[in-house]
Amino acid sequence: MKLSEAGELGLLRELERLQLVSGQDAEGALLGEGRVATTDVLTEGVHFRLDWTSYRDLGFKCAAVNLSDLAAMGAEPEGLLVGLGALGGARLADVVELYEGLNEAGVPVLGGDSTKSPSWTIAVTALGKSDRVPGRAGAVPGDALVVTGPLGGSAAGRYVLEHGLPGFDELVLAHRRPPLRLEEGKRLARVAHAMVDVSDGIGADAGRIAERSGCKVVLDVGRIPLAPRLREVAAIPFWTHGEDYELLAALTPEDAAACGFPIVGRCEEGSGVEPDLGGWDSFR
Amino acid sequence: MKLSEAGELGLLRELERLQLVSGQDAEGALLGEGRVATTDVLTEGVHFRLDWTSYRDLGFKCAAVNLSDLAAMGAEPEGLLVGLGALGGARLADVVELYEGLNEAGVPVLGGDSTKSPSWTIAVTALGKSDRVPGRAGAVPGDALVVTGPLGGSAAGRYVLEHGLPGFDELVLAHRRPPLRLEEGKRLARVAHAMVDVSDGIGADAGRIAERSGCKVVLDVGRIPLAPRLREVAAIPFWTHGEDYELLAALTPEDAAACGFPIVGRCEEGSGVEPDLGGWDSFR
Repeated sequence: MKLSEAGELGLLRELERLQLVSGQDAEGALLGEGRVATTDVLTEGVHFRLDWTSYRDLGFKCAAVNLSDLAAMGAEPEGLLVGLGALGGARLADVVELYEGLNEAGVPVLGGDSTKSPSWTIAVTALGKSDRVPGRAGAVPGDALVVTGPLGGSAAGRYVLEHGLPGFDELVLAHRRPPLRLEEGKRLARVAHAMVDVSDGIGADAGRIAERSGCKVVLDVGRIPLAPRLREVAAIPFWTHGEDYELLAALTPEDAAACGFPIVGRCEEGSGVEPDLGGWDSFR
Repeated sequence: MKLSEAGELGLLRELERLQLVSGQDAEGALLGEGRVATTDVLTEGVHFRLDWTSYRDLGFKCAAVNLSDLAAMGAEPEGLLVGLGALGGARLADVVELYEGLNEAGVPVLGGDSTKSPSWTIAVTALGKSDRVPGRAGAVPGDALVVTGPLGGSAAGRYVLEHGLPGFDELVLAHRRPPLRLEEGKRLARVAHAMVDVSDGIGADAGRIAERSGCKVVLDVGRIPLAPRLREVAAIPFWTHGEDYELLAALTPEDAAACGFPIVGRCEEGSGVEPDLGGWDSFR
């Protein structure tokens, strides 16, 4: 079987079944004493195109994507390690701009490695500490689901770039500069039964909670907050595509009402996600 | 200026000058409370060729290269995070073999990320704890330099593979399966004034101690232990090429004599390394 058939999730399941990966019961690894770590790899042509992004925005996004996983673990970030694969012909000034963008996320770059590579690859590891990691396995029937902000902006912004549409700067910005939800993450982590970030699409990400928690997630699609002007861009369900990096948390209906974020679904007995919204997998 | 002109060291110096990277005063990052972390990126065509290595050996090497940095910090490893960029057409079974090799280094893989990529890239982060990190800046004139094992085997093994020479299995093994010097690292870290691993060539790596410590390193070339049968392979100074992943430590002559490892040089007033042996830089 090829990775393009198994997908990222199929690969991870196989590695866990064979006990070749352990410890990742949340959006990142749990290291004991409240220490958490998360790694994301962004690669040219798959996650970004250099004609659509500046090196500075790319750096910011590479940091933000990892910090989003820390946020979903309720963590306070301590530092980043950056593994850079760059073309030998790349300009030093461009790489400096990339690191400036990485630093603009507000968390120090503590070290890393750089090497010549046939294609641009940025692997960031974020380290942090959390008093309580909700994980993905604790949701129970009766829980409500909340989301920390509007969805669809990033995918619509990508579409705007792809088609050269004028006048949607806010959506392009959502694509290039994902939000940092660290404060929201720490607040929700105190009470959430499960928490993930919306990176692969709300359907896929809710599916992770459903699978690990052994319950069904029913999304109340009409209540999902949407980024502005999505329908002006195209009649495409951008809000299902992911990369919004908002947080999705399962918690009691009382805590959900008290936290102030919109309630977008609930957990029930069963399995899977309703309705089926698909999701993103880099290998597929 | 291009990266191919600046080199990896030039890039790092520029990032440090601009305060875009901080904290890496040793072979990895120092995180406080004795916690350390190190990242290495290995990329196809630059660090490995898939026609010269099995996926299992590649996995082992990716882990070993990082654990070597932890060893140079006197650290006990806690876990690995693996960022994998793989071709979409890669076989699931090959990736499983890669992770088996990663696990064979004896440190659990706690999580990570995988993505489709135009070329194979493996970014490993190793996390650990150390009671004392010697760093690179503490060597003083009068110190002796010791090395934990023979040099040249890896580069000679690479040459053997490149030229299809028969009968040098031990050297090929040195190239494919670097040694793990974690116990030696912990022992030396108690007394070493500075410690690095020999990854870029003993000249370049000794140069790091010289530069950060503000002293000169004089290597006693005739005393450097060599891997067996190097001269049978070719009249090339393989022992200067790096990738041996032995440890190089500066310590008092008394501690050097007591530790039992061969003394291969000394620190003096001045700067630089004598003789000039060059070294490896992926960008050059």
